[in-house]
Amino acid sequence: MSETRADADFARGAAYVDGEVVPVDQARIPLLDTGLTRSDVTYDVVGVWGGAFFRLDDHLDRFLRGCERLRMTVPLDRSEITELLDRLVRASGLREAYVEVMCTRGVPTSGSRDPRTYDNRLYAYAIPYVWILRPEEEAGMDAVVVRSTRRIPPDSVDPTVKNFHWGDLTRGLFEAYDRGGRYPILLDHRGFVTEGPGYNVFAVVDGALVTPAVGVLEGITRRTVLELAAEHGLSTTIDDLEEPTLRQASELFATSTAGGVMAITSVDDSPVGDGRVGHVTANLRDAYWKAHSDQRYVTPVDYASRTQ
Amino acid sequence: MSETRADADFARGAAYVDGEVVPVDQARIPLLDTGLTRSDVTYDVVGVWGGAFFRLDDHLDRFLRGCERLRMTVPLDRSEITELLDRLVRASGLREAYVEVMCTRGVPTSGSRDPRTYDNRLYAYAIPYVWILRPEEEAGMDAVVVRSTRRIPPDSVDPTVKNFHWGDLTRGLFEAYDRGGRYPILLDHRGFVTEGPGYNVFAVVDGALVTPAVGVLEGITRRTVLELAAEHGLSTTIDDLEEPTLRQASELFATSTAGGVMAITSVDDSPVGDGRVGHVTANLRDAYWKAHSDQRYVTPVDYASRTQ
Ligand SMILES: Cc1ncc(COP(=O)(O)O)c(C=O)c1O
Ligand SMILES: Cc1ncc(COP(=O)(O)O)c(C=O)c1O
Repeated sequence: MSETRADADFARGAAYVDGEVVPVDQARIPLLDTGLTRSDVTYDVVGVWGGAFFRLDDHLDRFLRGCERLRMTVPLDRSEITELLDRLVRASGLREAYVEVMCTRGVPTSGSRDPRTYDNRLYAYAIPYVWILRPEEEAGMDAVVVRSTRRIPPDSVDPTVKNFHWGDLTRGLFEAYDRGGRYPILLDHRGFVTEGPGYNVFAVVDGALVTPAVGVLEGITRRTVLELAAEHGLSTTIDDLEEPTLRQASELFATSTAGGVMAITSVDDSPVGDGRVGHVTANLRDAYWKAHSDQRYVTPVDYASRTQ
Repeated sequence: MSETRADADFARGAAYVDGEVVPVDQARIPLLDTGLTRSDVTYDVVGVWGGAFFRLDDHLDRFLRGCERLRMTVPLDRSEITELLDRLVRASGLREAYVEVMCTRGVPTSGSRDPRTYDNRLYAYAIPYVWILRPEEEAGMDAVVVRSTRRIPPDSVDPTVKNFHWGDLTRGLFEAYDRGGRYPILLDHRGFVTEGPGYNVFAVVDGALVTPAVGVLEGITRRTVLELAAEHGLSTTIDDLEEPTLRQASELFATSTAGGVMAITSVDDSPVGDGRVGHVTANLRDAYWKAHSDQRYVTPVDYASRTQ
């Protein structure tokens, strides 16, 4: 790998493409990469908070499992990827970052339509931390249950392999805006709740947590919340979540690496509970951020490393 | 637009990115383009044969309709796109070409997750003509009816807006290879036949043509075949196509801009009819290629234009 410097160009982020670390604005991939032209790609996003990766190993496990499911051969091994992500954050100088790694099928060998013959490619970047709901927005998320579009079913595209098949989620986003909200929640073909663009969904029912079992990404934030809830003595269920439950729950929240635990305070313009951030949600949000200094979850970025 | 030259670098094709025409191998797009990171993109592919575009206007109609459906604002108008595609073929010097144009949602404006705020981007390229089945392969396509995966349903992602949500098709391709074939055919969630990676499917039943109505791209080659069949006095039906029909049909074929009319001579290792290319298929294939010199379908490339 070539040398990089943490200078002004890297303030908006650092990216890795073709063995080089470059400012994210300059990072470019081949037009013919089937990551674009077939959406033949998997990825993961890990957060950096207070100068440390959060659950890095769990994100790498999910990423490498996804690559295996797609039968891709990742061009770097696990320790090289770890070192690379560290290096990108270091190059950016960011203490709070959104760090993405992707593996694409790659560029077709001249004329061939056989994806088994392409060299798989790895790209990565670190940019400033992304908030699906900004923390200063105390009003919470205004959710819209999407009518125009159903979540892509698992027997078409496996949602547990993190993927960019976002046509349904993007259509949901436009519908939400059209209907005066910003946060779509998609149903599956059975009518059950799935997830939204970048987040899992939880309902608080009779003081217990429920989150959908199938048709969704198994979010690392979702897992963290399930673990923290159990530690706090809350009961949790991973099961089908019916649409009416969204309207009857005392609290709703969304979870994502891009924002953590985020209260949903209205659904289709009706308030959830009393319309304010509920106690269960607030407690889990606090526990989530506290976990960012828990040694079992964090991997400090090696900002002082001499290998820039 | 900058000047280009038809030199050796362009032999593998010419591409348009950021207002410049470059050799296709050098064409690169931003890593953060949501065409990649959300598969938020539509595209079309038009063929050039004997120095002329085939049904250019129909491809542009489909492309522009798709952009509209996705609520994208194409940065070039229709006549500018026409001129651009002409220019790319000219730069490549190709007489037979595969010409693709895509519009992506573009790169997120710093930190924003609202796709309405991005500047949509247009990319295009011309490369040597692509064959899904090479014409010298007289044996025809060995089809495999995919079991592992169902085609993404239309209420999740609209298949009539040409898209890169190919996870299901790619998984089908791997299954086909695993099972000793090369050409997957996917079923929908009702169990009916849809299409394969890059092609529509037709069955010949009692001398009449049947092709699936829903859950598929409305291929321009499919439309051409339907028109030519009608002109030849064949009856045609656009309707549900049941899986057993694939095994009972006297002939099967696939249609695509990448290869035209291509015989399917086996399904799951069993021969279709007598296992050879049938008469209806052969006649339609001939008619299809003959149509490439029919004035109503062709737009000659302006190779002599001084605007290189
Ligand atoms: C579709 C979808 N669901 C859920 C999530 C949340 O997953 P995580 O908590 O691992 O960030 C994401 C994250 O991007 C996502 O894209
Ligand atoms: C999924 C799918 N179906 C069908 C087709 C055939 O369409 P056309 O005849 O317009 O090339 C394509 C072409 O790429 C395709 O991608």
